[in-house]
Amino acid sequence: MYTLGIDVGSSSSKAVILEDGKTITAQRVVEIGTGSSGPEKVLDEVFKEANLTVDDMANIISTGFGRFNVECAKGEISEITCHAKGALFEIPGTTTILDIGGQDVKAIKLNGQGMVMQFAMNDKCAAGTGRFLDVMSKVLEIPMSEMGDWYFKSKNPAPVSSTCTVFAESEVISLLAKKIPKEDIVAGVHRSIASKASALVRRVGVDGTLTMTGGVARDLGVVDAISRELGVEVKVAAHPQAVGALGAALLAYEKINR
Amino acid sequence: MYTLGIDVGSSSSKAVILEDGKTITAQRVVEIGTGSSGPEKVLDEVFKEANLTVDDMANIISTGFGRFNVECAKGEISEITCHAKGALFEIPGTTTILDIGGQDVKAIKLNGQGMVMQFAMNDKCAAGTGRFLDVMSKVLEIPMSEMGDWYFKSKNPAPVSSTCTVFAESEVISLLAKKIPKEDIVAGVHRSIASKASALVRRVGVDGTLTMTGGVARDLGVVDAISRELGVEVKVAAHPQAVGALGAALLAYEKINR
Ligand code: SF4
Repeated sequence: MYTLGIDVGSSSSKAVILEDGKTITAQRVVEIGTGSSGPEKVLDEVFKEANLTVDDMANIISTGFGRFNVECAKGEISEITCHAKGALFEIPGTTTILDIGGQDVKAIKLNGQGMVMQFAMNDKCAAGTGRFLDVMSKVLEIPMSEMGDWYFKSKNPAPVSSTCTVFAESEVISLLAKKIPKEDIVAGVHRSIASKASALVRRVGVDGTLTMTGGVARDLGVVDAISRELGVEVKVAAHPQAVGALGAALLAYEKINR
Repeated sequence: MYTLGIDVGSSSSKAVILEDGKTITAQRVVEIGTGSSGPEKVLDEVFKEANLTVDDMANIISTGFGRFNVECAKGEISEITCHAKGALFEIPGTTTILDIGGQDVKAIKLNGQGMVMQFAMNDKCAAGTGRFLDVMSKVLEIPMSEMGDWYFKSKNPAPVSSTCTVFAESEVISLLAKKIPKEDIVAGVHRSIASKASALVRRVGVDGTLTMTGGVARDLGVVDAISRELGVEVKVAAHPQAVGALGAALLAYEKINR
């Protein structure tokens, strides 16, 4: 039996097809979100990958900011609930989730039973979000996918004292002008985003297992910097961007198998 | 009798020469601040403009972030005190001061006697500061000095909903892509900076006469947007950038004439 979860965010669309509530058959991410062709596209792609059609799905649940505009969905569930469900499936024992997306950061605290106890979000300030890294990757002329490698090369991280994206960008420009090694600037940048994101985690509390999700979790430099900042081990979901869609697919399965 | 006030900020240096504590003989602004040649340069310029030398000064007071590094100064006074003094001299009856500089925003509340009662500052977030306008002027390809003219041409301000400089910049880019008239985008930008700066003013309270100082006060679009946002009349100091230096020159005079 197949179920589908689709997560329509503000800047990306994600879909997961699950078999018998246990195995991921297919998962896709499309980097355009609500109000675009993203949801349609991600559905096309995930069905193609699984070699299945919408008629093969026993249930479909949508989540995320754009969840109310998914025609084929048989129900909608909030992204926090789906996120918690998906993260616990990927990393059993997760008690805190830090989700860093392209434009927002969420911290979710779970109890031992996987229930959402606390929740904090920043979607007003680009600092601490993927957008911050985006801006820095451009000014440093280093592709996002290589930022982590540079981070781990640094022996002497440069101080980037502003958390504000705009002021930090100016700092980076003047560090570059001073010929500070790029790896040290990258490490300073990672520390800055880690400091801002960690502040959000502290608002919900951290103990036990901290799991990172969202596109930024693919940058292992950020993961390491957050681990050092908070003094805890940080685990990364296997499909960091698709955790919400996965949770939706899991809940779609549970709904018809209770 | 001449006195000199010099205000060394993080991104500009200002100097005022005052005659008998009453008349401004010369005033200069140099757009580089502490740790640069700015302080030296602004002194050179102001002495040249006044056709005077350092030996003609009966007293010299420095203020601002970089006030402790001005060799010729005979004393230092905090920028808040100097700002209050200068604003009251320029606009008698001032009870609230809003100073928007290139990188920070300050709101100062005075009592009827001109004493500082409350003070709030933002120097951590580029939103609401001159830097915000700077970023927007670049993406709109409109010089800073012309932003005000565009503002007043708008009949239908475009919504710029993010206060964050980074997110607002993306909004402006997509408004441009949608061919929204530039004057309407400019007006939206002015409303955004006004909303953020006004929030700071509300923290100290506003009644009576609100006086704007700082480089951004030269943009009458911002002045109008703040006036509408707060529902009060906003006055602009005649030398908005030099108000702190003017206050220092006034206090330099008072110190030797008590
Ligand atoms: S601190 Fe910087 S990044 Fe954050 S809201 Fe302000 S302008 Fe945006």
